[in-house]
Amino acid sequence: MIHSGMKVAIFFGSKSDTACMKKAAEVLRDFGVEFSSFIISAHRAGELLAETVASVEADGAEVIIAGAGLAAHLPGVIASMTVLPVIGVPLDAGKVGGLDALLSIVQMPKQIPVATVGLDNAANAAYLACEILAIKYPELKKKLLEFRVKLKNDMAAEGGRGVEL
Amino acid sequence: MIHSGMKVAIFFGSKSDTACMKKAAEVLRDFGVEFSSFIISAHRAGELLAETVASVEADGAEVIIAGAGLAAHLPGVIASMTVLPVIGVPLDAGKVGGLDALLSIVQMPKQIPVATVGLDNAANAAYLACEILAIKYPELKKKLLEFRVKLKNDMAAEGGRGVEL
Amino acid sequence: MIHSGMKVAIFFGSKSDTACMKKAAEVLRDFGVEFSSFIISAHRAGELLAETVASVEADGAEVIIAGAGLAAHLPGVIASMTVLPVIGVPLDAGKVGGLDALLSIVQMPKQIPVATVGLDNAANAAYLACEILAIKYPELKKKLLEFRVKLKNDMAAEGGRGVEL
Amino acid sequence: MIHSGMKVAIFFGSKSDTACMKKAAEVLRDFGVEFSSFIISAHRAGELLAETVASVEADGAEVIIAGAGLAAHLPGVIASMTVLPVIGVPLDAGKVGGLDALLSIVQMPKQIPVATVGLDNAANAAYLACEILAIKYPELKKKLLEFRVKLKNDMAAEGGRGVEL
Amino acid sequence: MIHSGMKVAIFFGSKSDTACMKKAAEVLRDFGVEFSSFIISAHRAGELLAETVASVEADGAEVIIAGAGLAAHLPGVIASMTVLPVIGVPLDAGKVGGLDALLSIVQMPKQIPVATVGLDNAANAAYLACEILAIKYPELKKKLLEFRVKLKNDMAAEGGRGVEL
Amino acid sequence: MIHSGMKVAIFFGSKSDTACMKKAAEVLRDFGVEFSSFIISAHRAGELLAETVASVEADGAEVIIAGAGLAAHLPGVIASMTVLPVIGVPLDAGKVGGLDALLSIVQMPKQIPVATVGLDNAANAAYLACEILAIKYPELKKKLLEFRVKLKNDMAAEGGRGVEL
Amino acid sequence: MIHSGMKVAIFFGSKSDTACMKKAAEVLRDFGVEFSSFIISAHRAGELLAETVASVEADGAEVIIAGAGLAAHLPGVIASMTVLPVIGVPLDAGKVGGLDALLSIVQMPKQIPVATVGLDNAANAAYLACEILAIKYPELKKKLLEFRVKLKNDMAAEGGRGVEL
Amino acid sequence: MIHSGMKVAIFFGSKSDTACMKKAAEVLRDFGVEFSSFIISAHRAGELLAETVASVEADGAEVIIAGAGLAAHLPGVIASMTVLPVIGVPLDAGKVGGLDALLSIVQMPKQIPVATVGLDNAANAAYLACEILAIKYPELKKKLLEFRVKLKNDMAAEGGRGVEL
Repeated sequence: MIHSGMKVAIFFGSKSDTACMKKAAEVLRDFGVEFSSFIISAHRAGELLAETVASVEADGAEVIIAGAGLAAHLPGVIASMTVLPVIGVPLDAGKVGGLDALLSIVQMPKQIPVATVGLDNAANAAYLACEILAIKYPELKKKLLEFRVKLKNDMAAEGGRGVEL
Repeated sequence: MIHSGMKVAIFFGSKSDTACMKKAAEVLRDFGVEFSSFIISAHRAGELLAETVASVEADGAEVIIAGAGLAAHLPGVIASMTVLPVIGVPLDAGKVGGLDALLSIVQMPKQIPVATVGLDNAANAAYLACEILAIKYPELKKKLLEFRVKLKNDMAAEGGRGVEL
Repeated sequence: MIHSGMKVAIFFGSKSDTACMKKAAEVLRDFGVEFSSFIISAHRAGELLAETVASVEADGAEVIIAGAGLAAHLPGVIASMTVLPVIGVPLDAGKVGGLDALLSIVQMPKQIPVATVGLDNAANAAYLACEILAIKYPELKKKLLEFRVKLKNDMAAEGGRGVEL
Repeated sequence: MIHSGMKVAIFFGSKSDTACMKKAAEVLRDFGVEFSSFIISAHRAGELLAETVASVEADGAEVIIAGAGLAAHLPGVIASMTVLPVIGVPLDAGKVGGLDALLSIVQMPKQIPVATVGLDNAANAAYLACEILAIKYPELKKKLLEFRVKLKNDMAAEGGRGVEL
Repeated sequence: MIHSGMKVAIFFGSKSDTACMKKAAEVLRDFGVEFSSFIISAHRAGELLAETVASVEADGAEVIIAGAGLAAHLPGVIASMTVLPVIGVPLDAGKVGGLDALLSIVQMPKQIPVATVGLDNAANAAYLACEILAIKYPELKKKLLEFRVKLKNDMAAEGGRGVEL
Repeated sequence: MIHSGMKVAIFFGSKSDTACMKKAAEVLRDFGVEFSSFIISAHRAGELLAETVASVEADGAEVIIAGAGLAAHLPGVIASMTVLPVIGVPLDAGKVGGLDALLSIVQMPKQIPVATVGLDNAANAAYLACEILAIKYPELKKKLLEFRVKLKNDMAAEGGRGVEL
Repeated sequence: MIHSGMKVAIFFGSKSDTACMKKAAEVLRDFGVEFSSFIISAHRAGELLAETVASVEADGAEVIIAGAGLAAHLPGVIASMTVLPVIGVPLDAGKVGGLDALLSIVQMPKQIPVATVGLDNAANAAYLACEILAIKYPELKKKLLEFRVKLKNDMAAEGGRGVEL
Repeated sequence: MIHSGMKVAIFFGSKSDTACMKKAAEVLRDFGVEFSSFIISAHRAGELLAETVASVEADGAEVIIAGAGLAAHLPGVIASMTVLPVIGVPLDAGKVGGLDALLSIVQMPKQIPVATVGLDNAANAAYLACEILAIKYPELKKKLLEFRVKLKNDMAAEGGRGVEL
C-alpha cells in the first residue's frame, strides 16, 4: 500500500533517459512513496513544464527529482519555479566524462539550490527524497533506519567477515 | 525570534573553512532557523564526530550541512551515520579547480546519498536546508515564497527593466 | 548615427558581469549596431525574462547575446523562448577553470542551439552578432570587411614585418 | 522545392566525419535550405580551402558550417577567410573526452569568432544556420516557429502529460 | 609456504571490485606474504569496518590495502582508524575518467596520509606493500631484488635487444 | 635526540621546491626521524641521482620521499633504482590544476609503485614515512598513536564541542 | 632501398604498444628512412635503456621516437640521456582520457625538451622525424614536398571539389 | 658571433606573448643560433603569415618556433605551409588550466605534426630547436653536450651533494 501523503514528482528530459530514471521509481516503490513521472524538456516545452510543476505541487508533491544530461538545465529550471526541494540527477551522455551534466546541475547560482547526486545515480535521488520526506513522516524514517540495519547485516554476511581472493 | 522546532547542524573540517561556512549561518538566521556548528574532521576525530552527530539528532536537528575540501569525506561519513538529509558543500582548496572536493562529495555510492551544492556555495546549502524544512513547517514555506517574490522584484528594479552598458 | 534597423539585445544574469559584457557593447557601438541591455537571472526572474525576450523581439531585435557563469542556463533558457539566434558567452567565475559555464552553454540538446563563443569573450559575441546581421544589412558587411583589412594592416605594422626579441 | 536564396556551405576535414555531418544536411533539407558540402582539411589543402570558401561565398552562401575533430582548426581557419558567420561543430575523436575539439574551436581569439555548438551536434549547427538565415528570410522564420510548436505538442503527447516508470 | 610474520589486510567496498583486487592477492602470494580480505563499505557498515580494522591489526597485520571507486572514502576512513600504512587503490567506475576515485583517495588532509597507487592498479598496491614490509623482513627484500633482476632480464629477452616493427 | 636507526632520504628536483619540501623535514624532526636531503633533477643529473640513491641506501635509509612538479618523473625514476618504498609528492607548478604532476607520479606502470600523497602535501609524505618506519620501530608507533590522540583532543578543544558562526 | 645515412631509433615500453608504434615504422619505410626498434621500460630496465640509447647514437641514429602510456616517463628519461631530438608519443591507456600520458611527456622541465605529438599518433612522430632529418638530407625534403602535393591532390579528388551529404 | 648557417624563425600571435617568447630568444642567443621574430596572428593576417613563412624559408630558416594561446592554431597553420619542423609553444592564457592551448597544438591530424613543448615553456622550444639543428651542425652538438655537463655540475654544486632543510 502506498501512503498517499508522501508524494514525489519525477521529471526527465528525454525518452532515452527512462531506463536510468526507473531506478528512482523502484526505490520509491520499495519505501511506499507515491510518485508521478513526466518526460518534459525544459528547452522544448518550457510552458508545459511550468504548468506541470505547478500542478504536481497543487496535487501534494513535496519533493521533485529531475534527471538530465548534456547542458542539463532541467533541475535548475524546475528549482526556479518552486520552493520545493529539487534533487538533480546528472545523466552521463558520454561526452567529457559526464562533467557537462554534473557541472550544469550542481553549480547553481546563489538562492536557487539544486540537491545534486552522483552521475547516473537516480537510485540515490530516491533515497535522498525518502530522507527528506522522513523528517515529516515518522513511518518513513523507521523504514530508512531498518534499511540501514539490513545493509550492514547483508555486508557482514557477504564478505564483511572475510572473503577468498 | 528563532523557531525552536526547526533545527540544522553545521559541520566543517577545519577552522580555515569558517569564513565560507558563515554564509550558511547568515541565511539560516535570516529565515529564523536554529542551528548549531561544529569543527570536526572525519579523519582526525571520527568518534567525536559519531557522538556529535548522534547528539544533534537527539537534540532535534532535522537537516545537516557539512562543508569540506580536498578529499572531502566529511559529508559522506556523516551520511553514513544518520538517515537525516545531509547537504554537502565542496570547498575549493585551490587544487585541480575544486574537482577534488566536488567529486569526493557528489559521487557517493548507492543507498547513502549526499545532497551536493556548488563549490564554496554554503549559502545554497542553507537555502536548500530551508526548502527541506519547509515541507514540514508551513511558516518557513511562506517565507521562502516571499523571498522568491523579493528576488524577482529586486531584479526588476536593478537592471531587469534595462541597464546602461 | 545608429542604424535603427539593426538591433541586438544583451542579457546577463548578475550585476557583477557588467564589466565583461561592456566589451560586447563597445564593439556593437563601433559598428553602429543598436542594442538594449538587461540584467535578468533565468532562475530568479523567469517570467520577467520571458516577457523581456518577447518584448525585445517585438521591438525588432534580430540577435540576442546572453552572458552567464557557473551553471550558466541563461543563454539556453532564452534560446528556448525564441527562434532568434542566441549567442552565449560563458563567464569564468573562477571554478573548475571555467568549464562549468562553457559546458552548461555549449552542450545544448538537439533542436535548441546556442552559438557559443570563448570564455569571457563578450567582444567575440558582438563580432558574431555583426556577422549574422551582415547577411541582411550590406552596409554592415562592408564595415566588417574594412575592419578585417585594418586588422591585417595593423598586424603588418606592429610586428608582422619583424620584431625585436 | 529548395529556395535558392538560402544557401549554406558545409565543410569537414575527413571522410570519416561524413556520418556525423549528414545530420546537418538532413535538417537543412527539412527546412528547404540549399547547401553544398566539401571535405577539405585546413592543414592538408589550405589553398583549396581558401579558393572553395571564396567560391561558395561568390555563389551566394550566407552561412558556413564546419565540423572538425582533434586540434580542430578548420572552423577557425575558415572564419579567418570570410566575414560570413561560421558555425563550428566539435567532433569527438575519442580522446580527452572531446575537450580537444571543443576548446580548439570555441576559444577563438578576439575579432574572429566561431559560433560553436555541442560535441558531435551537427544537427544543432543546422538549426542555428536556419535561425541565422531566418532573420533575412521570413518564410524560414515561419517554419522554425511551426517546428517549435510541433516540438511542444510531440512532447506533451509522448510523456509530458505523464509516463509510467 | 607463507611466512606468518608478514601480514597484509585487503579491504574493498563492493563485490564488483573482486576481479580487480584479486591482482593484489596474486602478487602477495607470489612473494609469500600472508593476507586476509574483506568486503566492507565505509558508508554502509562503518562499525563493522572499525571492528575489522582493529581485529586485523590485533592479529598482526602490518600494512593495509584498500580499493574503492567513485567518492572513494574507504582508504581514507581506514587511515583515520589506524597508524598502519594504508595503501589506496582508486578503482575506475567509468565516470569522469576515474578522477573521482583518484582525487577522493589521494587528496587526504594533513596528518592522515593514504599511499595512493594508479587507477585500477591493485598489483602495484601489493608490490608497494611488499616494499614496505621489506624494510623489516630481509628475506622479502631479497625476493624483491631478485624480482627486479628478473624484470630486467625478461625485458632484454623480449624486445630490449631489438624487435621487428 | 634523533634515533639513528630510522632514516629517510628526501629528494626534490629544483631549489624552488625547498619551501614546500621543508614541511616534510619539520614533521620528521618532530617524530625524531633522521633524514638527509638532496636537490637532484632526474633529467639533468641522472647519474648523480643513481649514485646518491645507492649511497643513501648503503647509509641505512629505509624510506625515500621525492617531490617534483610538471612532468614529475623524479619519484618514478628513483623507484626504478631501488626497492625501498618511495613516497611521491606532486608539486603544483600552476598548470592544468596540478594534474600534470599528480598523474605523472601516481600512474606508474605495474611492478614499480610510487606511494603518492596529495598535491603539495609534503607533510603527509613525512607522516606516511613515519607510519612505514613504525612497522619496524615500536617507539615510533607509540609516538604516532599519541599524536593521533592529541589531534582528537585538539579538535575537541578548538571547535569540536561547538563553535560560533 | 633505404638510405643508410638517415637513421631513427624507436623505443616503447611494453609489447602491448606494438600495434600503435608500427604506424611510425610504416611511415619511415615509405620515406626510405632506416630505423631500429626496442621494447625497453625506463622503470624496469634503466641500465639497458642507457646502454641502448648510447649504442643507437654511436650507430648513427639522429632522431629518437619514444612511445609510452600512463605515467609516461620513457621519452623524458631518454631525453635526459642524449642531445638527439626525442619525439614523444603519448599512448592512451584508457584512463583519465589519456591526459596522464600526454602531461607526463609534454610538461618536461626546462633544458630537457621532448617534442610531443598527439595521443596515439605514432604516424605523426615519424612524419616529424622525417621533417627533422630533411633539414640535413635534401632528398628527404624533396619527398616530403611531393607528399604534401599528393595530399592536396588526393583531397581535391576525394571530396574537396564537393561531396554528396 | 652568430653562425649564419643556423637559422630559426619565431612566430607568435599577439604582442602580449612577447615576454614569454623572449625566453626562446635568450636560449638561441646563448647557443649562437641566428633568428628572426614576427608577431602574426593566423586568423587576422593569414596571407601575411603565408608570405612570411615562405620568405623565412627562402632566407634559410631550418626550424620554426610558434607560440600561441587559447584556440592556438598558429603552429598548426604554419605546419600546413611548410615541411620545416615546427615547434609549438602552448601559452597559458588563464582559462581551463591552459588545456585549450595545449590540446589545440598537440592534437594535430595525421601527416601534419607539430613538435609540442610544455605550457609557457618557450625556453624548451629553443633547446629543442638547437637539438634539431645539431644533427646537421656538429659545433652546435658540441655546445649542447657541454651544456649538459654544466647542468650536472651545477646541480652537484647547488644541492646535489646534500642540502639543509
